[in-house]
Amino acid sequence: MASLKKFREWIDQHRADLRDDYFAFLRFRSISSEPEFKSEVERCADWVKEYLQASGFKTELIATQRYPIVYAEDLHAPGKPTVLIYGHYDVQPVDPLELWKNDPFEPTERSGKVFARGAVDDKGQIFYAMAAMRALKENGGALPINVKFCIEGEEEDGSVGLSGALSKIQQKLKADFLLVVDHGAYDEKTPAINLGARGMLTMDVKLTGSKSDLHSGEYGGIAYNPNRALVELLAKLYDSNGRVAVDGFYDDVIEPSSEDKKAFAHAGDAASYAREYGIEALGGEKGRTIQEANLFRPVLEINGIGGGYHGPGFKTVIPAMAIAKLSCRLVPGQDPKKISRQITDFLHRHCVKGMKLDVHVHAGAPAYRANPASELANAVAAAAEEVTGQPCKRVLTGASIPIVASLSQTIGAEIVGMGYGLPTDLIHAPNENFDFSRLEKGLLTVARAMELLTQGAKR
Amino acid sequence: MASLKKFREWIDQHRADLRDDYFAFLRFRSISSEPEFKSEVERCADWVKEYLQASGFKTELIATQRYPIVYAEDLHAPGKPTVLIYGHYDVQPVDPLELWKNDPFEPTERSGKVFARGAVDDKGQIFYAMAAMRALKENGGALPINVKFCIEGEEEDGSVGLSGALSKIQQKLKADFLLVVDHGAYDEKTPAINLGARGMLTMDVKLTGSKSDLHSGEYGGIAYNPNRALVELLAKLYDSNGRVAVDGFYDDVIEPSSEDKKAFAHAGDAASYAREYGIEALGGEKGRTIQEANLFRPVLEINGIGGGYHGPGFKTVIPAMAIAKLSCRLVPGQDPKKISRQITDFLHRHCVKGMKLDVHVHAGAPAYRANPASELANAVAAAAEEVTGQPCKRVLTGASIPIVASLSQTIGAEIVGMGYGLPTDLIHAPNENFDFSRLEKGLLTVARAMELLTQGAKR
Repeated sequence: MASLKKFREWIDQHRADLRDDYFAFLRFRSISSEPEFKSEVERCADWVKEYLQASGFKTELIATQRYPIVYAEDLHAPGKPTVLIYGHYDVQPVDPLELWKNDPFEPTERSGKVFARGAVDDKGQIFYAMAAMRALKENGGALPINVKFCIEGEEEDGSVGLSGALSKIQQKLKADFLLVVDHGAYDEKTPAINLGARGMLTMDVKLTGSKSDLHSGEYGGIAYNPNRALVELLAKLYDSNGRVAVDGFYDDVIEPSSEDKKAFAHAGDAASYAREYGIEALGGEKGRTIQEANLFRPVLEINGIGGGYHGPGFKTVIPAMAIAKLSCRLVPGQDPKKISRQITDFLHRHCVKGMKLDVHVHAGAPAYRANPASELANAVAAAAEEVTGQPCKRVLTGASIPIVASLSQTIGAEIVGMGYGLPTDLIHAPNENFDFSRLEKGLLTVARAMELLTQGAKR
Repeated sequence: MASLKKFREWIDQHRADLRDDYFAFLRFRSISSEPEFKSEVERCADWVKEYLQASGFKTELIATQRYPIVYAEDLHAPGKPTVLIYGHYDVQPVDPLELWKNDPFEPTERSGKVFARGAVDDKGQIFYAMAAMRALKENGGALPINVKFCIEGEEEDGSVGLSGALSKIQQKLKADFLLVVDHGAYDEKTPAINLGARGMLTMDVKLTGSKSDLHSGEYGGIAYNPNRALVELLAKLYDSNGRVAVDGFYDDVIEPSSEDKKAFAHAGDAASYAREYGIEALGGEKGRTIQEANLFRPVLEINGIGGGYHGPGFKTVIPAMAIAKLSCRLVPGQDPKKISRQITDFLHRHCVKGMKLDVHVHAGAPAYRANPASELANAVAAAAEEVTGQPCKRVLTGASIPIVASLSQTIGAEIVGMGYGLPTDLIHAPNENFDFSRLEKGLLTVARAMELLTQGAKR
């Protein structure tokens, strides 16, 4: 606890600076998906670079096909392991703006919370990781281990730049451990480390029935309606037990062991989902628990459907085409390429005669699982327990982090995810917010984890 | 033929005026569904009123909750029947504007065709009917029968004003015959009169699964996706023979007699649909001909579906809700209210547990059939045959004309539809066009039909 005490004191002495720097970071309108904010995204990258430089890091902006990656290193702990810390300085769009209670880029405090786009995701979280380096250095003169930062500028827009640059910079990014500071806590009191995510596969499905939209009176009874063909086709994707009906879909699934089911906690239960989202938790396969259905079983979702006119009023049209956006969440054992072929074949086999079917598969990424007993996992969990006084949960996520999976694979590092986000933070939504107490917990956890990690040898 | 000759001569003498007036009419941007054109719609109504007044009619603008109805009458043929001529002076929107080769409100001639929004629908057609009155008067000093005009300003936006005013003005509109000048020819050479339309019913279906959109990774396997619930529900609406699976849907359908099947011609065949629209004509019930499926059988269409994100790129969302727009085309015997109840019950019975289902039924209208041997039907058909030299086809439409059905019912008139529109005129689409030869055929047909109708007695 001695170690924590000195960090707590450091925070007390630097609280005003931390706040100013955090707010300065939040003020950049670094929305990566909207081209009009290009210069703000770039200025934000400069700010991150300067912050790390002022913390004594050797820094560099790595140009990509889109936004620069902020790379920084402090490698003055010979014989000690190297940690690569990953995060992002870009943020989600802010629409609908009218639902915000303040300008999303003018951080505003209400009831102890800071409201701003990026307050948590990921500016808040990557900021406490950067600040933790200052706390470490100013308490010992140097970092106890070797640290690299890779902070990208388009995580919210597909990580295109980092994906494209990965093979070129893999030597530079090489590390023993990869710490992803872009995750959530287990609940308000309980910390968590993340040790795996489901894989992902996305595809577009388009059915074309005619050269142009047709009047549904003049052609009703003649033309086969693409909307009808689409609902008939997509309904076939599921059987009556809620299983995906695509042939072979589950063939390669590695069933979770009972150890796995015990090892990984799941925060949600049916009652909490009903309360918070008004849903009955009936979306999975019959006979599976929520934990299994969300973490250990693959799913196929129809993320979007659209055909004809579906706004206010009415248009009696038989549309020329109808489209759907499908995605899968995959589990260990499943190969995205094989699954995409199986689904494509299934759709072609079941599509009604006379309809033109186009299936476009986007890139996929397999599921990944971290070593739950890695030195980094143990260090972060122990640090979080010291900071919060609560046992740290080990969790998986049903979501996917495609870039992180390929990043850890490319550089061959053991991966751990951490963070103090909560569902009530409203990330990606209006009125995103974070509080200083969790920002401080994050700072303390990162700083202390680095110290604990020095107990490990260079690998 | 003597009668036609004098009208042809009248056209020859007035060709420049006809063209100027037609073009002046087309220049009004009378788009009823777009509020920014309000004053243009109203100025257009004034122009129509003045044109009829200058033709010796007693005219009036009948205010409605939205746009005025131009009412006109010339009732100086005692003992002769009264014809009410219906049409509309409003037009469809012009989007997408970039596909037009000229300003849609600056009529432009190319290869003998006039390109403009409303060139046919319905300015072109109602214009030749009005001009026919001048030709009649200037060739005999007075109309041979009694004529009323009811030209509304929001046919393209649901006829709200006329519907609301109907009961108040039914005495004023009273007539023996209702001539609807808003239809098409059978083909380029062959004229047609329309003697019936399918009824109509529209409804909105909404499935709500949660309070807000959910992340499809975090909640995939937990939340039941409303898109999935929607496609599963809508797919149940059809059986494997292409019949509507809603219980009782066909119970009240009056099967067409073999006389009916012979009496009503149908222009389209499978080859023509394949050629013109790239469709295979597979949309109807198995075992029915195209004529039956389009004219004598009811259909249920999914005019629109929408849920989640379906634009460019991808959003891995489980939407809070998904919606569909359904419509039926009904045939004689079917009651829109009963059918809407049957469909609503069916949807509620088959909707998956845990999903909130809302069904909103809009107004419906039953099918109608005109007397194929009415004096007006015989007069218009005979006139069209004189004008074109071709036998006139008697047709039904698979489409619906809700206001006309209730108009004829309210005023108790025998109804006939006529017109010289063709599919290649691109009504409702960019580059709508008409040609002077068909405009003149229309004028001659209306004028001659009025003469032939005088042979009938007052009813």
